[in-house]
Amino acid sequence: MEVCDLSKGNFFCPRSVAVIGASRGKGKVGNVILENIINSGYSGKIYPVNPNADEIFGIKCYPSILDTPTDVELVIITIPAQFVCQALEESSKKNVRWAIVISAGFKETGIEGAKRETQLVEVAKKYGIRILGPNCLGIIDTYCPFNASFSKTMPSKGKIGFLSQSGALGTAILDRATANNIGFSKFVSLGNKADISENDLFSDWGEKDDTSVITAYLEGVKCGREFIKISSRVSKKKPIIVMKSGNTDAGARAVSSHTGSLAGSARAYEATFKQTGIIRANTIKDFFNYAMAFSYQPLPKGKKVAIITNAGGPGIMATDACEKNNIPLATIGTETIEELKKFLPEAANFYNPIDILGDALSDRYKKTMEIVINDSNVDAMLVMLTPQAMTQPLETATAISEIIENNERKIPILTCFLGGTVVEEAIKFLSLRNIPNFDIPEEAVDTLKVMMDYVDWKDKEDTPIESFNVEKDKVREIFNKCRAEERLELGESEARGILEAYGIRIPRAELAVDIDDAKRIAEDLGYPLVLKIVSPDILHKTDVGGVRIGIKNKKELEENFNDILFNVKKYMPDANISGILIQEFITDKKETIIGVSEDPQFGPMIMFGLGGIYVEILKDVSFRIAPISRQTANEMIREIKTFKLLEGTRGEYPSDIDSIIETILRVSQLVTDFPEIVEMDINPLFVKKQGEGSIAGDARIRIGG
Amino acid sequence: MEVCDLSKGNFFCPRSVAVIGASRGKGKVGNVILENIINSGYSGKIYPVNPNADEIFGIKCYPSILDTPTDVELVIITIPAQFVCQALEESSKKNVRWAIVISAGFKETGIEGAKRETQLVEVAKKYGIRILGPNCLGIIDTYCPFNASFSKTMPSKGKIGFLSQSGALGTAILDRATANNIGFSKFVSLGNKADISENDLFSDWGEKDDTSVITAYLEGVKCGREFIKISSRVSKKKPIIVMKSGNTDAGARAVSSHTGSLAGSARAYEATFKQTGIIRANTIKDFFNYAMAFSYQPLPKGKKVAIITNAGGPGIMATDACEKNNIPLATIGTETIEELKKFLPEAANFYNPIDILGDALSDRYKKTMEIVINDSNVDAMLVMLTPQAMTQPLETATAISEIIENNERKIPILTCFLGGTVVEEAIKFLSLRNIPNFDIPEEAVDTLKVMMDYVDWKDKEDTPIESFNVEKDKVREIFNKCRAEERLELGESEARGILEAYGIRIPRAELAVDIDDAKRIAEDLGYPLVLKIVSPDILHKTDVGGVRIGIKNKKELEENFNDILFNVKKYMPDANISGILIQEFITDKKETIIGVSEDPQFGPMIMFGLGGIYVEILKDVSFRIAPISRQTANEMIREIKTFKLLEGTRGEYPSDIDSIIETILRVSQLVTDFPEIVEMDINPLFVKKQGEGSIAGDARIRIGG
Repeated sequence: MEVCDLSKGNFFCPRSVAVIGASRGKGKVGNVILENIINSGYSGKIYPVNPNADEIFGIKCYPSILDTPTDVELVIITIPAQFVCQALEESSKKNVRWAIVISAGFKETGIEGAKRETQLVEVAKKYGIRILGPNCLGIIDTYCPFNASFSKTMPSKGKIGFLSQSGALGTAILDRATANNIGFSKFVSLGNKADISENDLFSDWGEKDDTSVITAYLEGVKCGREFIKISSRVSKKKPIIVMKSGNTDAGARAVSSHTGSLAGSARAYEATFKQTGIIRANTIKDFFNYAMAFSYQPLPKGKKVAIITNAGGPGIMATDACEKNNIPLATIGTETIEELKKFLPEAANFYNPIDILGDALSDRYKKTMEIVINDSNVDAMLVMLTPQAMTQPLETATAISEIIENNERKIPILTCFLGGTVVEEAIKFLSLRNIPNFDIPEEAVDTLKVMMDYVDWKDKEDTPIESFNVEKDKVREIFNKCRAEERLELGESEARGILEAYGIRIPRAELAVDIDDAKRIAEDLGYPLVLKIVSPDILHKTDVGGVRIGIKNKKELEENFNDILFNVKKYMPDANISGILIQEFITDKKETIIGVSEDPQFGPMIMFGLGGIYVEILKDVSFRIAPISRQTANEMIREIKTFKLLEGTRGEYPSDIDSIIETILRVSQLVTDFPEIVEMDINPLFVKKQGEGSIAGDARIRIGG
Repeated sequence: MEVCDLSKGNFFCPRSVAVIGASRGKGKVGNVILENIINSGYSGKIYPVNPNADEIFGIKCYPSILDTPTDVELVIITIPAQFVCQALEESSKKNVRWAIVISAGFKETGIEGAKRETQLVEVAKKYGIRILGPNCLGIIDTYCPFNASFSKTMPSKGKIGFLSQSGALGTAILDRATANNIGFSKFVSLGNKADISENDLFSDWGEKDDTSVITAYLEGVKCGREFIKISSRVSKKKPIIVMKSGNTDAGARAVSSHTGSLAGSARAYEATFKQTGIIRANTIKDFFNYAMAFSYQPLPKGKKVAIITNAGGPGIMATDACEKNNIPLATIGTETIEELKKFLPEAANFYNPIDILGDALSDRYKKTMEIVINDSNVDAMLVMLTPQAMTQPLETATAISEIIENNERKIPILTCFLGGTVVEEAIKFLSLRNIPNFDIPEEAVDTLKVMMDYVDWKDKEDTPIESFNVEKDKVREIFNKCRAEERLELGESEARGILEAYGIRIPRAELAVDIDDAKRIAEDLGYPLVLKIVSPDILHKTDVGGVRIGIKNKKELEENFNDILFNVKKYMPDANISGILIQEFITDKKETIIGVSEDPQFGPMIMFGLGGIYVEILKDVSFRIAPISRQTANEMIREIKTFKLLEGTRGEYPSDIDSIIETILRVSQLVTDFPEIVEMDINPLFVKKQGEGSIAGDARIRIGG
């Protein structure tokens, strides 16, 4: 997947633009867009193209793009779908670099439309033109300024870049943002994403100074692997906030593994967002809260919050929310308290939440903030106001803005002014000064938590993807053999072979052809042991009495060896017997599971969990997309709720977590090397005591056709 | 705790009211309240009381309440705290029934104030006067009308009764409600709750026709047992929505049992709300959403929702939210689809969510709703609108209100108009017509879920509290003995005795004094068995080799019996040996735990969970307040995440759930009969196969001093 570099030239502020399909008809798309371009104050050249008009809005019209007097950088196409390709062909003659195809009637309408879209992409590729859309609402750049969109709402200038896969939701968000004085740098309606996608825009906006926060509404991503690469990189520079809908996994799927039954697109997106540092907004509300906070306020340098309030109730609510989010309330320093005591009434609460009482006027707020902001124990401040008899909402908002202007320690300050009409003006004042105000205390605290998590992500140094010395050829050979035999489900011994080739420990075992052989092998391996009949004719070993476990000594070995032979002879007298597998019996172990499931969007997705009921009933598992780093493997193990069982509790020994990490990394390398693996379970992976390693008890592997 | 019957007379609309402390000073409490009473349109008699004024706001003033020309039903006291008691004494001479004490300076200020408050309550009791407050903002009744509060905002008429333990939050909510055209029937600021509390008001409002939804902001409840009784009864009539803050359990507590370490005030409130059907609002946002929906719309009769939208994105969001909340999307009937096909564009989505496309005008919305509302598969409707080029927000709102007027099937209709300025007028229109509009799709769906859950609660027939035939005297005897010996922690055999007295099965066992005795007992009990040394001198039986488990036959019995005696003689030659306990060994069992912890507010709280790591690591437990019904016991067992383990999975047998229920009920009866039990653990409670019962493996009981 080629990713266009939108930064070559300026897609968002071209020197010249042609509107193919510009129209005089009031309310028509080609009319509205032209009007929006003009009204936005765009200063480049504008060429309306319409064979039936001389001029529109007083601007000279051209019968065809071929007739424009100069080359054109960007064309906006609004004509019916069947004419779009030709218009693009013609555009190429004018050295057009970018086309925004507003016209609908492509992939979204069915097979015919999809064909037309493919054709469109081909034409574009032929001439090196990059396309936004089709079936989109256009773009807005508030700094250029340039409103080449269908949206009459031109947001105010701000630092938020916003792209939307739903045009309707995009305009609804612009509308709400405008009502709340929230500014944007850019807006892009993605439409069908035939060419330009979120990947291009994330990449471009990562470099743009006018954009400090990247936001997106997505229903899916275009190229998952690329998406992971780009967003991991960009999110280290600036926050990417994504609202992703469509989390319901479509219908029942035919799955044959544990991992498969637990995986699915929702899990894949969850894993991707975790791995790339993308901040997920679950609702439009979250979207606004996060975008506002990140674009308005500095990032917190620590996690300790001071709450200042003029009423107990809301203070308790904020405290509850902090507790729930594991955000510690700052311990207010004794010096700070001394200072506060100089002017706060005796009945005030000097500890956190700092309650400056219901009769607090704006100057009491200001003095308190001035002192608290300089307390080195405080990393962030939440200022709450509840309108009471003497409260001065607007004056208090002014005081807060003054404090923020002199905020030398650069700590984030969030506000929560509760109420309706009485605080309306104050809230507007705050928003115009880039002070994020929240409807309810819980949303303010949740947003602070998201900011703190982002700082953790930004500061975290990820470890590189490791590469183990493995026997790749051996694996390729096994897969080739399977494919040659038209088997996609690998046999047990093949799966064992693959694990061994990638350095994943399996129980030591050797085939014994007679009892003497068995005794020798037993000496080698050491007791306890497992005995298993090996015969190409016997599929269900247990059913014929062909398996014995926990063999403790030579005497038991002899007895059981003979028993197995006797049983098999009895139940399946004609079976061809290769011998009896003598295998080490793993003791002092915990059962875990490592699985892989191929996600159609993001590729191989690795699962980890504790085995048995923890996976089956509690579904207590974690997912990441391969390839993964040691750091990520470590995180995914610690993410499960039952991690404490591995750490060792109730006086139990701690498990060998390092060896689980190592196994995950080797599996990650395996499925990255061999994308044909569509499903894989190591179940159980026996994890022994710290320092004693992990051993794959059983494995299933399925490859694609 | 005596609960006043506010319905005798009308506290909210008295025939006469005196304001003791009425003031001419603009902005003073006694001035504002008097002004509010007058401005609210109150038509009863008003007597301002102030020795230094002839008249205030043109109303004759009296130097003392004793001087008023008639008796007075309600006094509002705003004078300094130290004079309040005397004013109340005087009020009694005028046959005052209720007093609202606005004045602060009581319990909230410390020990002195608390004393004053106790005194106040004594005076009130002496004269049979009921008190609201002190330290409160007063009351509002929109129907009387009567604004005897400090709040300048008089909300519009509505069906929501609202009481608040925080005055500041109360006014903030009234202010926000007014800004959003949400009406109330009554508002009460509770203040210190010296007398009148949420219990009185829930009880009163349960009977009041003007109130269809009861809402409250609480930081605690006054009398937990009473609270449970009243709210369980009232919530069957009308929804009670409670926002409860202060969910952080204060500090670390000294606890000696599993149950104690998992219990705590937050859990107690959670259990109480579940048991009483109280709807918990976690945030102010929830509070408004739920109050609005319940007071505006009929309750759903089923769970199937139809979503109508003019844009895909928000439709997907609503669908995701339904999936998350386990709300099924209605399967639109074929007849309905046929009808819709007659006028909807071909590209529309006729299945749920029904997408009537971006160019839908109000008439398309109306026609669609008209048809869908009559589909018998549909139990509730969510109508979503995203402002696009041709969208008619206000006209669509009008269409919705027309549909609601003719809503013969009485299904709830919720709306979600997304956007800002463009939809502002439409949203106002909706709110004025009692159509609940939600900011975001998720909040609309969450609210629907809450409505559905409430219907389930309302329809659920609870079973009565059962009473088993038990040996109460035997238990009393044991407790008396313990107390006499100043022991609060019961010994093992005492705990066993108590369980037996309440019909809770314990392992059968008998003391053997010699091997012959042991053999006879073993015959009786049947193998396998457990052997335990019994000696007053041996506390840690295992340490001296005094315990053997899984004894399978007579030979093993003899060997182990002698082994134990040998060991004990060796390690503790001087120990006084009573004999060896021969006890049945429980096989085929699952370990569960039933615990009791005394909550200071609500009384004995019963816990259930699976034993071992499920309790310790996953904290997968459920709580209810005793006494509990069979129905509730059943619910609490099914509530734990690991319930499937008891049902039987992976081919395992199902456990005897009925016997767990029975044990919970007997424990419930025990702790209800003996409130002195402050902590109790049956851990493990061995649960055998279905039909085979449950057996208490071990028990710990602690009683209060």
